[in-house]
Amino acid sequence: MSVLVAGVDVGGTKIAAAAVDIEHQVHHRRKRPTPGSALEVVDLITEMVQELPAVTAVGVGLPGLIKDNRVLTAPNLTGWDEHFDVVELLREALGVPVFVGNDADVGLLGEWQAGAAVGQHDVLGVWMGTGIGGSLILSARPYRGATGVGGEFGHILVQPGGAMCGCGRRGCVEAYAGRRMMGLAAEAERAAGRNSALFSIMAKKGKPTTTSSVWGAAIAGGDAVAIELMDAGIEKLGIAIGSALNLLDPDLVVLGGGMTEEFGQKLADRVEKAAEPWTMHVREDRRYVAAALADNSGIVGAAALARAGVLTG
Amino acid sequence: MSVLVAGVDVGGTKIAAAAVDIEHQVHHRRKRPTPGSALEVVDLITEMVQELPAVTAVGVGLPGLIKDNRVLTAPNLTGWDEHFDVVELLREALGVPVFVGNDADVGLLGEWQAGAAVGQHDVLGVWMGTGIGGSLILSARPYRGATGVGGEFGHILVQPGGAMCGCGRRGCVEAYAGRRMMGLAAEAERAAGRNSALFSIMAKKGKPTTTSSVWGAAIAGGDAVAIELMDAGIEKLGIAIGSALNLLDPDLVVLGGGMTEEFGQKLADRVEKAAEPWTMHVREDRRYVAAALADNSGIVGAAALARAGVLTG
Repeated sequence: MSVLVAGVDVGGTKIAAAAVDIEHQVHHRRKRPTPGSALEVVDLITEMVQELPAVTAVGVGLPGLIKDNRVLTAPNLTGWDEHFDVVELLREALGVPVFVGNDADVGLLGEWQAGAAVGQHDVLGVWMGTGIGGSLILSARPYRGATGVGGEFGHILVQPGGAMCGCGRRGCVEAYAGRRMMGLAAEAERAAGRNSALFSIMAKKGKPTTTSSVWGAAIAGGDAVAIELMDAGIEKLGIAIGSALNLLDPDLVVLGGGMTEEFGQKLADRVEKAAEPWTMHVREDRRYVAAALADNSGIVGAAALARAGVLTG
Repeated sequence: MSVLVAGVDVGGTKIAAAAVDIEHQVHHRRKRPTPGSALEVVDLITEMVQELPAVTAVGVGLPGLIKDNRVLTAPNLTGWDEHFDVVELLREALGVPVFVGNDADVGLLGEWQAGAAVGQHDVLGVWMGTGIGGSLILSARPYRGATGVGGEFGHILVQPGGAMCGCGRRGCVEAYAGRRMMGLAAEAERAAGRNSALFSIMAKKGKPTTTSSVWGAAIAGGDAVAIELMDAGIEKLGIAIGSALNLLDPDLVVLGGGMTEEFGQKLADRVEKAAEPWTMHVREDRRYVAAALADNSGIVGAAALARAGVLTG
């Protein structure tokens, strides 16, 4: 086996880690629930990486705003703050270089290196999980904006004065299609007297929140609230994707994240239909695909980030 | 004087042409009203270029969708259709190579070569004229999307189910901030019994439509309808720019087009204020500027396109 690096995918509900070889193959994959504080996240990542065979570097993808290998904000993780130096803490604990990237960026990077976007020049990545992440490949390289804070697809406005978003504004696409906001909307329905199977399934599965698998089970079971919220989320995703396509005209839209793992290509197909009415130039040759590496996109991409970081850092 | 090329800027209301030297200096500039048919546009461009000193190539910017040096659609020009081969007709009439580009693309190219965007890596160009054009410089080169139809900033959705746009959809930013749609909105106000100085000024100036100078005079005179429509247009522009900045994080936003020529930096400042609430990461070092070449942006950019075309075509 070639020299290994660790890829770590920190989500709002779970952390996955594995050793990844130079061929982007994933070994010794493991998964745990995301703990409630930033320090516990660091301890758990440390533990999970120490369980792996020896690695020469660690890449971590997480849902946050990252610039110059520092996490500036991570609103969908609890107990995180801008002065919390996850890279330094992990480097001290593990004794190898550590590189951190936005979860959607590392997810799309994984797909671009070894999944659905291999060889593509212009790609929009939309990561549908706890929040809505976004990432771009433009002119055959990752594009992160002038200062590294680009790709905030989740905060494209789709409804002025609309639903409250976690960012404090109203009407962002994440306010409708982000799983956390969808869960809050379901709770609001319940408070208004309209129950949903989401909560009984959540209790039965022993989940602390409405995870993607909870949504999957509720929708499969015909739960009206879950179906309506999912329909609304997809409708708004379509608007935001249409606007992004009008501006950027990519060949490929890759859908990833926990909700895509749950619903697969069916979700990508629904999103394509929802985007068409808002797309100026509907192209027969533009494809919408679910991430091919599924729940390994982030691990493979984080590992690629770690390798690139060691090479260029 | 160095070898000259012609730069031609075709707008919804006027056509400007000039000879441009290698230093991007503009010579023998002339301007005429845009005629009502595509064939008349070709005849007028021919005549205007023939009045210039000898040129080795011609570049034409026009408000349309252009791919592979062909105009696919030009909804803000009358009598245009996809089979009308403006490049071939002009080449036959003038006997030199002809290159055509989208008006916002050549406008921003002009600013990038010789105006407000010189040396910039990541720029969003918003051209506010008859319609709303958009153009991008990303990673220090013009970005036109995978198939050349990117940059359709005007059709970013800002209000689902909102005002009718010329593209047939509802709620695009152009439906609020494009001068043609603003003029139609003013006519609707008049039909509903609320008159506006826009129409008396238009008649007095002998203009066939509410041109940018008509809007300038009406707003300067305190006309309520014109002020309200302009406020609404700027508000919606702010939403669309915020969404584009969240996705692309450029360092610079260049405002151009007829309305910017009329209102200058004051318009850029107002647009900046309107975009701030919708911008995820407001950066002190991000600038909003009016096109420095003003009504020569398109001419200089079209000439640059012609020079590049001769070199690469």
